[in-house]
Amino acid sequence: MSRVTIHRVEVTFGDCDPAGIVFFPNFSRWMDQASLAFFRACGVPPWRELEAERGIVGTPLLEIQTRFLLPATYGEELEIHTELDEWNERTFRQCHVVKRGSDIICEGMELRAFCVRRADIPGRLRTIPIPADILALCS
Amino acid sequence: MSRVTIHRVEVTFGDCDPAGIVFFPNFSRWMDQASLAFFRACGVPPWRELEAERGIVGTPLLEIQTRFLLPATYGEELEIHTELDEWNERTFRQCHVVKRGSDIICEGMELRAFCVRRADIPGRLRTIPIPADILALCS
Amino acid sequence: MSRVTIHRVEVTFGDCDPAGIVFFPNFSRWMDQASLAFFRACGVPPWRELEAERGIVGTPLLEIQTRFLLPATYGEELEIHTELDEWNERTFRQCHVVKRGSDIICEGMELRAFCVRRADIPGRLRTIPIPADILALCS
Amino acid sequence: MSRVTIHRVEVTFGDCDPAGIVFFPNFSRWMDQASLAFFRACGVPPWRELEAERGIVGTPLLEIQTRFLLPATYGEELEIHTELDEWNERTFRQCHVVKRGSDIICEGMELRAFCVRRADIPGRLRTIPIPADILALCS
Repeated sequence: MSRVTIHRVEVTFGDCDPAGIVFFPNFSRWMDQASLAFFRACGVPPWRELEAERGIVGTPLLEIQTRFLLPATYGEELEIHTELDEWNERTFRQCHVVKRGSDIICEGMELRAFCVRRADIPGRLRTIPIPADILALCS
Repeated sequence: MSRVTIHRVEVTFGDCDPAGIVFFPNFSRWMDQASLAFFRACGVPPWRELEAERGIVGTPLLEIQTRFLLPATYGEELEIHTELDEWNERTFRQCHVVKRGSDIICEGMELRAFCVRRADIPGRLRTIPIPADILALCS
Repeated sequence: MSRVTIHRVEVTFGDCDPAGIVFFPNFSRWMDQASLAFFRACGVPPWRELEAERGIVGTPLLEIQTRFLLPATYGEELEIHTELDEWNERTFRQCHVVKRGSDIICEGMELRAFCVRRADIPGRLRTIPIPADILALCS
Repeated sequence: MSRVTIHRVEVTFGDCDPAGIVFFPNFSRWMDQASLAFFRACGVPPWRELEAERGIVGTPLLEIQTRFLLPATYGEELEIHTELDEWNERTFRQCHVVKRGSDIICEGMELRAFCVRRADIPGRLRTIPIPADILALCS
């Protein structure tokens, strides 16, 4: 019985390309928002606080896979249904289904890891095991 | 012996997020540029001309898959090596390898189709078989 | 007694730069959304319909001016208060105040014109006089 | 005799909106790149190093003003000519002229300040006097 959160997006003129449809990297941007909204809805503090307190800068992506089924255009309202469907020791997988009413616009999978900054190389990150308290909040 | 084109990108401050690394949808944006640059390098006219002459609005995506191996940050120069590795009847697959020097930053696969506007539903597109002349130019 | 519309924005992680604050072109993007939301709230049809019926492709910008007073960061909710404060024969001016609670984050002015495509030069636009029916809807 | 730097941009499909022209906030994004390129060309280290060594997170904007004269579309190459035309005690002004060949596409002014993080309020910045060594490099 996993938790599903819903993130709402209104497609705007500037999100669309000369073909008049959503420029696809915006779907990745909205899924990223939905990923963070999922954690916030579970009670996880914003990355800003986690960074200040524990050095966690966020959950960078290791892999994404997205299937685009129908185009969307400006003026439309989309719902992103987000679920966390797999916890591994150092990674987790979120699935997003982007819907317009009952139509599925696209589906995306994200593989992510919690990361901290490397002390030895400025600007580089390293993954950490999933923090137990965050895991507990999200389960 | 497939053709490989190289698209160069300089990562800018605004491409990076509060973790100081490239916000990942920008990689999709750059691969999209690299996809179009590939066709332009093969002698395919810009979508604008193809739309005016033949109704082809571009090559919307059906699916993407990207693996992120190393972070990149602003001030760095990246090279995207692009190859068209599969032609199907109505779809084609491009592969992109994003490199910083000899390091591989990320790898992406795009499945695309040539599309025209549907006459019956404004704002909707439909795929067409790969145009033979475009196929010839790219082979 | 001019009409004021309010457009709400939630600042996301990807909207912020390595300094941890909103990357400023996003304010222009949000004001553009607020500009269109103003017209939609007045009952003006989406550009898509205006383009199909009357060739009007939208309201491109002639000039913008923005003052940035306070930074904003992700997780914050912003309100954009939009007002149309001047109609000229071929141009109009909208003002936007971006607020976080009672704090003013930034203020922007946009000078815009209604435009149609030029028949003689593909890809170029020309301004038209403000359509009387749109003016009536917005007053 | 002020120094002028030139930043080149190739307009891509995804930079354009459903009207087929550059979505205007991208001009702000490119001017921001041009602003940073100016400092880099003068020998100023990247913000990343300035932040690590001196706490300077960059040069956030206080004000922008842009006039849009001609639209641009994808496939076009633009040049941004950047000049620093005024140093004040705590602020400076850069001017950008965006050209396509000899045509002026748009002109922008940016008022910026060098900023450090405030120790007392996380996520907030404060301006500092223009550092003398940076001023010397740019003059």
